[in-house]
Amino acid sequence: MTLDGTNTWVLREPGAERVVLVDPGPLDEAHLDAQLAACGGAGRVALVLVTHHHHDHTDAVDAIHARTGAPVRAVSPDWCRAADPLTDGEAIDVEGLSLSVVATPGHTADSVSFVVGGDKALLTGDMVLGRGTTVVVHPDGAIAPYLDSITRMRALVTAGEIEVAWPAHGPVLDDAGAVLDHYLTHRQQRLDQVRDALVALGEQPGPDAADHPTLARRVVEVVYADVDRSVWDAAEWSVRAQLAYLAPA
Amino acid sequence: MTLDGTNTWVLREPGAERVVLVDPGPLDEAHLDAQLAACGGAGRVALVLVTHHHHDHTDAVDAIHARTGAPVRAVSPDWCRAADPLTDGEAIDVEGLSLSVVATPGHTADSVSFVVGGDKALLTGDMVLGRGTTVVVHPDGAIAPYLDSITRMRALVTAGEIEVAWPAHGPVLDDAGAVLDHYLTHRQQRLDQVRDALVALGEQPGPDAADHPTLARRVVEVVYADVDRSVWDAAEWSVRAQLAYLAPA
Repeated sequence: MTLDGTNTWVLREPGAERVVLVDPGPLDEAHLDAQLAACGGAGRVALVLVTHHHHDHTDAVDAIHARTGAPVRAVSPDWCRAADPLTDGEAIDVEGLSLSVVATPGHTADSVSFVVGGDKALLTGDMVLGRGTTVVVHPDGAIAPYLDSITRMRALVTAGEIEVAWPAHGPVLDDAGAVLDHYLTHRQQRLDQVRDALVALGEQPGPDAADHPTLARRVVEVVYADVDRSVWDAAEWSVRAQLAYLAPA
Repeated sequence: MTLDGTNTWVLREPGAERVVLVDPGPLDEAHLDAQLAACGGAGRVALVLVTHHHHDHTDAVDAIHARTGAPVRAVSPDWCRAADPLTDGEAIDVEGLSLSVVATPGHTADSVSFVVGGDKALLTGDMVLGRGTTVVVHPDGAIAPYLDSITRMRALVTAGEIEVAWPAHGPVLDDAGAVLDHYLTHRQQRLDQVRDALVALGEQPGPDAADHPTLARRVVEVVYADVDRSVWDAAEWSVRAQLAYLAPA
């Protein structure tokens, strides 16, 4: 609801009194007021869900819990208020609004998505974004669960359970299958680029490759050679995640 | 001289007693010791030159001035010690070592390069890097002087005055002309990408485009769509410089 900020989702079954609020977002009073107005008032919030622990999704958790009294649920107990953590495969029902919980770690270890069955939609948090590709920040995020999660989401499209993706940043994605295919292809291309860079550098990554003091930087210098140097520090985060994935156990 | 860090250059005419030291670099005692050993001792340093004010180039200025007593010269008076600022076109001679000063603003307003005539080399500081392309950080750096400076360097190649580039980060570049051509092409491509993004966004940038709260981010979302989101914050720095260049006066 903030421009170029984090999307807060308000879900309500047609005719229902009460709503589910997903990702209350940053702690901004104007944003909170707008959220609760969209909900029809603080008393209408039955449940607050959190897609993962990053602060742009969770800073308002305590304020929204205080104002609404509604339980807050997340994968991590740290972000639950008056409720239990979410579990994979769990079904949630609020006045006929049916959600199903899909554990989708990768962006972070605690990332979770929600199937909104009535809309054939998947609320993806930061695992799939409205623009660009997501970040996998080593060591909280990791490539292996990330690829598994994206593959699992893609299977939901194939099975006809979802068609669209509702991300936590940027616009709605009408063709979730195409976006997920792009995510898988893009990640494999980046991994290939990192593998090629390691060959070019004559490096055989050891088990601690992700935490080597200079290896990630040297890989960035190859893979991001044509990108302004201003982005190299940031690119190191993603490359470390990829080195961790490619390293021998 | 530090791994993947800033190059410090020690210049000495064959047979000469004294040296010129360029970019003493970060304040690291081991690095200082190594520099002075390479110079043949603190007493051999006749002059210290600084290519621009960024801290990885200047943090050791006071320590090296204290240890050697040598004057320190830069474009900005802030980084001169016991000496005057450098002026464009000035000739420097130290026991037969001939350097000529070429003002090359762009990366920063105070960036300067040095022609080492005897080696047909240009000491480029951060204006040309051994790997990747340089950063133009608005508002200290700016695209118009950057393009002028790269064009001026290219003309030195055409005139036969330089053949190689000695950058402040990364390895020596044997074919300065090819690298400078790539820099010009790359920057024009990025500017074209930013122009196309503005059209796609339906934006006509005003005079304050570089400082608009969301425009640079939206341009990044288009131009860097296929690059991990982890680098978007950093990419905004370069895009702001480009918006400043493309905006009407």
